[in-house]
Amino acid sequence: MAKPKKQPRPKAITPKGFRDYFGSEVTQRTEMLRTIAGVYHRYGFDALESSAVETVEALGKFLPDVDRPNDGVFAWQEADDEGQGDWMALRYDLTAPLARVYAQHRNDLPTPYRRYAMGPVWRNEKPGPGRFRQFYQCDADTVGTASMAADAEICAMLSDTLETVGIPRGDYLVRVNNRKVLNGVLETMGLAEDADARDAVLRTIDKFDKVGEQGVRELLTQGRLDASGAYIDGVGLSQDQADPVVAFLTSKAGDTAATLSNLRVAVGDSRIGAEGIAELEQIAALLDAGGYGPDRIEIDPSVVRGLGYYTGPVYEAELTFEIFDEKGRKRQFGSVAGGGRYDDLVKRFTGQEVPATGISIGVDRLLAALREKGRIQAVEHGPVVVTVMDRDRMADYQAMVAELRNAGIRAEVYLGNPKNFGNQLKYADKRNSPIAVIEGGDEKAKGIVQIKDLILGAKIAESATLEEWKELPSQFEVPRGDLVAKVREILATQDGQG
Amino acid sequence: MAKPKKQPRPKAITPKGFRDYFGSEVTQRTEMLRTIAGVYHRYGFDALESSAVETVEALGKFLPDVDRPNDGVFAWQEADDEGQGDWMALRYDLTAPLARVYAQHRNDLPTPYRRYAMGPVWRNEKPGPGRFRQFYQCDADTVGTASMAADAEICAMLSDTLETVGIPRGDYLVRVNNRKVLNGVLETMGLAEDADARDAVLRTIDKFDKVGEQGVRELLTQGRLDASGAYIDGVGLSQDQADPVVAFLTSKAGDTAATLSNLRVAVGDSRIGAEGIAELEQIAALLDAGGYGPDRIEIDPSVVRGLGYYTGPVYEAELTFEIFDEKGRKRQFGSVAGGGRYDDLVKRFTGQEVPATGISIGVDRLLAALREKGRIQAVEHGPVVVTVMDRDRMADYQAMVAELRNAGIRAEVYLGNPKNFGNQLKYADKRNSPIAVIEGGDEKAKGIVQIKDLILGAKIAESATLEEWKELPSQFEVPRGDLVAKVREILATQDGQG
Repeated sequence: MAKPKKQPRPKAITPKGFRDYFGSEVTQRTEMLRTIAGVYHRYGFDALESSAVETVEALGKFLPDVDRPNDGVFAWQEADDEGQGDWMALRYDLTAPLARVYAQHRNDLPTPYRRYAMGPVWRNEKPGPGRFRQFYQCDADTVGTASMAADAEICAMLSDTLETVGIPRGDYLVRVNNRKVLNGVLETMGLAEDADARDAVLRTIDKFDKVGEQGVRELLTQGRLDASGAYIDGVGLSQDQADPVVAFLTSKAGDTAATLSNLRVAVGDSRIGAEGIAELEQIAALLDAGGYGPDRIEIDPSVVRGLGYYTGPVYEAELTFEIFDEKGRKRQFGSVAGGGRYDDLVKRFTGQEVPATGISIGVDRLLAALREKGRIQAVEHGPVVVTVMDRDRMADYQAMVAELRNAGIRAEVYLGNPKNFGNQLKYADKRNSPIAVIEGGDEKAKGIVQIKDLILGAKIAESATLEEWKELPSQFEVPRGDLVAKVREILATQDGQG
Repeated sequence: MAKPKKQPRPKAITPKGFRDYFGSEVTQRTEMLRTIAGVYHRYGFDALESSAVETVEALGKFLPDVDRPNDGVFAWQEADDEGQGDWMALRYDLTAPLARVYAQHRNDLPTPYRRYAMGPVWRNEKPGPGRFRQFYQCDADTVGTASMAADAEICAMLSDTLETVGIPRGDYLVRVNNRKVLNGVLETMGLAEDADARDAVLRTIDKFDKVGEQGVRELLTQGRLDASGAYIDGVGLSQDQADPVVAFLTSKAGDTAATLSNLRVAVGDSRIGAEGIAELEQIAALLDAGGYGPDRIEIDPSVVRGLGYYTGPVYEAELTFEIFDEKGRKRQFGSVAGGGRYDDLVKRFTGQEVPATGISIGVDRLLAALREKGRIQAVEHGPVVVTVMDRDRMADYQAMVAELRNAGIRAEVYLGNPKNFGNQLKYADKRNSPIAVIEGGDEKAKGIVQIKDLILGAKIAESATLEEWKELPSQFEVPRGDLVAKVREILATQDGQG
């Protein structure tokens, strides 16, 4: 008989497209979420946390791309007592769950209901560089009002939020468009009822930033050779049909009034188009009265937004400064937030019209932008490390860290094998510790401790002359009773230099 | 041909066993997580956020109960390009993912690695009252050291954390036991190698709190009639075999030394038992030196902990005050945190010994306890509501809320249909607003606003005499320019009374 096979060891890897976040990556995100929640809260929005798991039918199918399994969500079938249960899925955004929550609890919620939500969402997409299958969103939505004042408020709040987290005016722009205007354009082209053509036109418009006016015209008609030499099929419209789309796309002018006037030409006598333009006009007037000029928020007909559930105004916040991409090429940082009005999402459940509008901030991208601009420190100091010179006196060392902590100083005792002292200093180095504390038998007998300034020590080791070395001692001998005071003094000096 | 069936509307319900959290339920939890993270951080623990999704093989099978589908996790099979991919699952705790993270990143992490993590975990269990399939945990673990100083530190930190979030000394107890001691007892019984018998004995010990010494003895031997009249099968041990278990369970004495001495009798000459007792002795000595006496942390042999991966010391934090359960009966609040040493979890991946120990706080239960004791306000005030008297002057009202927000006051404009003013006040009431602001055409012409103190108004409406009504006006007419100052004044008065 064959020997029983040994179970292979499990592989220690994150599933494909997922990642781990360490230390300041986590705390900086937490801090940013807290800051954003503060702005949302001041605007009167209430917190909501729905579960990560929803029934598939409640989530609906609104994700943009189609080249994915399971419609882009992670889903599974419940096993219940009788056998097969409901299909469940991880939420792919925070908007679809909000529609479910509002429909479920509408009798207990105020109307309009302003709510904010933050947390991870999951997309069953092909992972790519910098593109993960779990990421954070931070949303604010107003449910139960068709008033454009709600849309204007959302845009103003988005602008305030970006400035509050550290993106100065001039480095971002909130761009506003309206799905109804585009629908008006499609109506004039006779494509209003043709969902496939509509989607193809939408996808083409979304490429305007990349391919420009001529490129869009080619993609809408016969097709186009792209930069790599590949031929991209066109939508197959005639040049006449492409005209209003191009007119729409290029209608952005020097000021809002001129842009709106160009849009009026593009939508011709479409009723829905005119409605969309009137809505944009209302939003612009309210924002203008609030002092949110085109340096912060502007009407821009090239904004599309991929999600299928938008019905009116759509918004997108872009960071306008340039960064270098992974290939070293300069490019604009791009979108960090987006949203819009989705008047039919709640109706799916209730059958009644419940207008709603909101935004979603891509927190991880926003963090990346702030790091890119050096507005968030990438590396933070670790704790003070109390070394262990005498394994039997662990209680003494724990008393030291307790004293330091009680004084509000982050501190820890070395818990590895203390035999090799060099390992303890290497550990402190890996922890990015500012200070190491040493108390061997001699020190104990004399009632003193050694305190090593590791930041200064590293600097000296790097560059100091012998002269400076003598003048800048990086190790201090102080009475045991002065431990906390001396540590505090060194930390203050380090902060002053840092 | 039959008419095409209309798609039925999706049901607006949370999946079974899941729930939504609103307003202060969310913000209070966020605040508690922040407070706990503060303590963990001061102790030198670094933040880690792993993804919610892991491969099933990485998670392993360590959940206690067995009467569940899919071994208690939510799992699904990935669809990859070639057809069928890996099995993935939602994490059921934060410990199994930590073992994976440490094994994966061990070359970049310090050793020992102290980390904290917080977030939801998912269990595919039968939901029950107050028992949900998604709940929050807040963990701290030290990986890479076998030192009992790490276990003592974790217990001390748990004690500090409970006091910091608002559980005073005397209202909680951290109880410490050691799996090795129990294994020693099983060794003396000749059951060390019999996993089934071991698990049965463990489960029986876990019922000690409920059934007492005699009950445990019956359950270990021939079985027992429970309170409901049902007969519970016994494990089938002899009375002689049951003796050491009962001796072990009842070995808790007036002080640590006496408890340890009783345990020495219970484990006889078992080597592993003696090792466990020596470890408990070390932990007790370190805690004692740090001032963590038996009023906060005590050795208690009845602590079991369900998870299968523990190998040494185990901890449990209990709240000792009494509450009334859903049936109106008095009972102790019970466990809010637990943990222990799990020296083999990382080894599953790497083949090398990597000792580790840690705790997990059940944040939702801890919050429930604080609400129960009135230490967290259940209801919070909503925003100041600026009402809309004239739909065309929305910009004026938005200017008011902007002024209030810029002064740090939470404020919002009414965004529903403004026609019926009563609805606006009903809305403010539902929002629990402290103040409503009113500016109609007359007020606008006179350059004034009306400010309604809604808290005082509600009090007066409830109980005031006509006399008091006159003396305590709840509505004030102030110049438009004094809006912010007057609102601030009223809020200060309300805070003073609240």
